[in-house]
Amino acid sequence: MSIQIGADELTDYVKRVFQAIETPCKQAELLASRLVRAHLRGHTSHGVIRIKQYMDAHKAGTLDPKAKPTVEVQGPCYANVNGNRSFGQVAATFAMELAIKKAKSNGLCIVGCYNINHVGCLGDYVQMAAEQGLVGMAFCNGGGPNVSPFGARERVLGVNPVAFATPSGSSRISVIDFTSGATAEGKLRLAKNKGEAISEGLILDKDGNATTDPNDFYDGGAILTIGGHRGSALSIMIEILAGILPGGRCSAFEDYVEGNGVLFFAIKPDLFRKKADFDKDIDLLYSAVTGAKKAAGVERIWFPGEPEEECYKKLSREKIKLNEKTWETVSSVGDSLDVSFEAT
Amino acid sequence: MSIQIGADELTDYVKRVFQAIETPCKQAELLASRLVRAHLRGHTSHGVIRIKQYMDAHKAGTLDPKAKPTVEVQGPCYANVNGNRSFGQVAATFAMELAIKKAKSNGLCIVGCYNINHVGCLGDYVQMAAEQGLVGMAFCNGGGPNVSPFGARERVLGVNPVAFATPSGSSRISVIDFTSGATAEGKLRLAKNKGEAISEGLILDKDGNATTDPNDFYDGGAILTIGGHRGSALSIMIEILAGILPGGRCSAFEDYVEGNGVLFFAIKPDLFRKKADFDKDIDLLYSAVTGAKKAAGVERIWFPGEPEEECYKKLSREKIKLNEKTWETVSSVGDSLDVSFEAT
Repeated sequence: MSIQIGADELTDYVKRVFQAIETPCKQAELLASRLVRAHLRGHTSHGVIRIKQYMDAHKAGTLDPKAKPTVEVQGPCYANVNGNRSFGQVAATFAMELAIKKAKSNGLCIVGCYNINHVGCLGDYVQMAAEQGLVGMAFCNGGGPNVSPFGARERVLGVNPVAFATPSGSSRISVIDFTSGATAEGKLRLAKNKGEAISEGLILDKDGNATTDPNDFYDGGAILTIGGHRGSALSIMIEILAGILPGGRCSAFEDYVEGNGVLFFAIKPDLFRKKADFDKDIDLLYSAVTGAKKAAGVERIWFPGEPEEECYKKLSREKIKLNEKTWETVSSVGDSLDVSFEAT
Repeated sequence: MSIQIGADELTDYVKRVFQAIETPCKQAELLASRLVRAHLRGHTSHGVIRIKQYMDAHKAGTLDPKAKPTVEVQGPCYANVNGNRSFGQVAATFAMELAIKKAKSNGLCIVGCYNINHVGCLGDYVQMAAEQGLVGMAFCNGGGPNVSPFGARERVLGVNPVAFATPSGSSRISVIDFTSGATAEGKLRLAKNKGEAISEGLILDKDGNATTDPNDFYDGGAILTIGGHRGSALSIMIEILAGILPGGRCSAFEDYVEGNGVLFFAIKPDLFRKKADFDKDIDLLYSAVTGAKKAAGVERIWFPGEPEEECYKKLSREKIKLNEKTWETVSSVGDSLDVSFEAT
């Protein structure tokens, strides 16, 4: 059974929940819209199910809803941001806005950000860059340890996603966002809540055996990496780029505090050539990919970001479906803060 | 059967072969040492087997052995290099040297490079950055079309590798270098030469069926991507970063000329924090990864770059083994140019 809620009323509810722990209005709005947006783009694992995790962090004192990020080091093409244990969405949005501003003036910019809570969908940040006409890149560590390096049977690494986005001449924005782990932890949580088995090759149980039961992960198992040793190497490199370089911690470190570290890049598409030529080539690539001969049974070849965009268009016209256990988790957080859901 | 040749005598021979088509001495030395280095690091697919490909490009007029790369656009933290159809190794080495120089002065630098022949092992370039104490990143497109986007059954994309390298406090340099295609084309060529089958899940035949016969690739088949839709999205993004951004061509374009496009990043590890703290954290991560509990049957958990480094140490003490067909291909190129191999 699932609960159906309109996006606007869910956003309003989530906003009020965050305000109940003294999150300033603007930040609570940002958080709510990002979590609901994840549902609309089909990334349910990064949706309102995360509220419980954020509230737990707040109770544990590792998340400060009122904290503001501060710039610690900066130059024309770089900056580093200390999130001061703020919401990841708040600090990372601040960091990407800074990267965008500097890249617009100086051609490119990299911005690190550390000491923050979970950032949500990494793709949201590179999309910000692309919406401002820039190429965006993002690396993200932390959130773990959840993933075993190639050859290991215990958790050492985060799921460590990467994201890229590019603008085009038309309004089309291409976004990719994927973990170097074989699956995101949130997807295991959803399968567990639904009581469903997961695909083979995603996790190990606590003894290092292959399993399709998501409960085995929560019983001391570990997530595998995408493409074996290659995803493992990528994940390790992301620990360095997104964690160590900006001065954050890696999931395996003794002094690791639950949260993420990020490294953002923003680059002007006309840094090296005319924007019109860049746009023309993006269109050529789009035609070559989406117009390729289809494999048997395939209806459409998608360009990166199109499935999420189509999903967004479709779901924006419908109500959001939450499974009962997810809604129970979310609404019990609201209840504990005397925030009641009001269907409009 | 295999032929055994010392690294030095093979390097000398390869250098003389390139000099025979009027490659300047220094460039011929660079090419020879890079191709032989690939064997010593276990990347046989990027070794001397490539000589034939380069000679074919020279005959076709798409490779100019005497060409020098030129800087077309530059600022404190960026530059773009036109390779003028030079050897990829020559232009890309020039581009990474420029990135290193600018990053040392200004904290970071990105350098694009286009209009070049095949660059060889992408890892070689990020290793240059790490040897100079910088974090290196590289994206590379072209060399195709060889890879089918997710859902397609024809070649559209290049194998499009990425590479990263980081320095550490000790002399240890960590390098990763992998294709977003499920395999490198050179590996298929080697399997074909050896008459061996390849693993499942790497290629499709010309009708879109799964196959383990490398000949099916050369008969109109296509390479798949790593991790299905994720590798496909990554590969498409690399076409944009390494091809379209610097102004090069994508493998699928009508005006594509055989060769690569690259985008290099060099970043100072002390851009945001003290180098000593960066180094200490790299060591912590190294211990966490390599000291993790091992899965059954695993003897050692490797940090990125270690297998190649160990291979290099071992093979540097031995002769290089080339399979008969590879040596036949290489030596027939030498013979056609009146360059004879002289065992020392």
